[in-house]
Amino acid sequence: MRYRLPAPVRSLVNELTKLPSIGPRSAERLAYYLMKSPKEEALNLAATIREAKEKISSCVLCGGLADSEKCYICSSDSRDKKTLCIVENPQDIAAIEESGYMGIYHVLMGSLSPLDGVTPDDLRISELVERIKTEQFDEIILALDPNVEGEATAIYLKDILKSFNLKITQLAYGIPMGGNLEYADGMTLSKALEGRRVY
Amino acid sequence: MRYRLPAPVRSLVNELTKLPSIGPRSAERLAYYLMKSPKEEALNLAATIREAKEKISSCVLCGGLADSEKCYICSSDSRDKKTLCIVENPQDIAAIEESGYMGIYHVLMGSLSPLDGVTPDDLRISELVERIKTEQFDEIILALDPNVEGEATAIYLKDILKSFNLKITQLAYGIPMGGNLEYADGMTLSKALEGRRVY
Repeated sequence: MRYRLPAPVRSLVNELTKLPSIGPRSAERLAYYLMKSPKEEALNLAATIREAKEKISSCVLCGGLADSEKCYICSSDSRDKKTLCIVENPQDIAAIEESGYMGIYHVLMGSLSPLDGVTPDDLRISELVERIKTEQFDEIILALDPNVEGEATAIYLKDILKSFNLKITQLAYGIPMGGNLEYADGMTLSKALEGRRVY
Repeated sequence: MRYRLPAPVRSLVNELTKLPSIGPRSAERLAYYLMKSPKEEALNLAATIREAKEKISSCVLCGGLADSEKCYICSSDSRDKKTLCIVENPQDIAAIEESGYMGIYHVLMGSLSPLDGVTPDDLRISELVERIKTEQFDEIILALDPNVEGEATAIYLKDILKSFNLKITQLAYGIPMGGNLEYADGMTLSKALEGRRVY
């Protein structure tokens, strides 16, 4: 006989299962944990979710996470406002910041994926065109994911951006640093060969 | 340069990291997901956590999850009230229910672990003794985890329960069903041999 969780716990498991990479078993474990944990801890979690969701919006310029109209990168005076790096998602900004990049960003909020019903109208492309017209960039760096959707998006963007007199670049594909050559896949090695440089 | 998440998102990541098996990276991914998801979905999650935490308590008899004074198993008329199965945690009840067991339960809320500071006073042992005095069981089944803490707890309980005139049993240890003998560890095989039965 299947054990019947009390209804409020069942609802909690249902909501937790909607989170990425949380399956039904993990959701149950998390729910049991929350039921056992001190009341304050569980209520704090609920409060921080609500608060973050209510206080955080998209930066009106780049589309990254912001707790005021503009994010701290777009508001900063020490960034190079002539270089724009186009990424798919807000979390990509965090990754590129680790590289020491000092330009600014534009988040598309996804990549073109006709099979999932994501068309150019669903991405922040008109906002991008608007920014290019008003902000006068020297260089646009395409930093999209190295997969089919990312490449389709890059091709689409190149087509749109060619009418502006702009340097358009793309992140280099190749062997990741610190990795082991023998574990690199054929596609990566082929890109690494294609992009080889005089030493 | 390390990317500075807006403060409300940082708090959310902190709270999420407290959950079991959610590391800093998973917590960040969940936080980004919640920031991107429809407002309703994130607020629903917050509301179900709060609601479950406020509506769910421990069953006054067995200690399992309940949304009223007694859980549905303790309230049921179709259970065998003479057989008591002792488990460590509420989630163990769900596992044992799958077996078709029709007796009732007593949750200890953990196992003895002097290194973690868990002593008999931290477990629901006095409640157990009280139940044994009033409810008149025929058999007590020890269903504790097959590890050092579970075995220490079983030994401690046997010692306490011996003064009552009761049949005390323990779950069988052995090869799990559907498994492959060659993958069973030495300890399990030794228990399986120890508990071998005439065929």
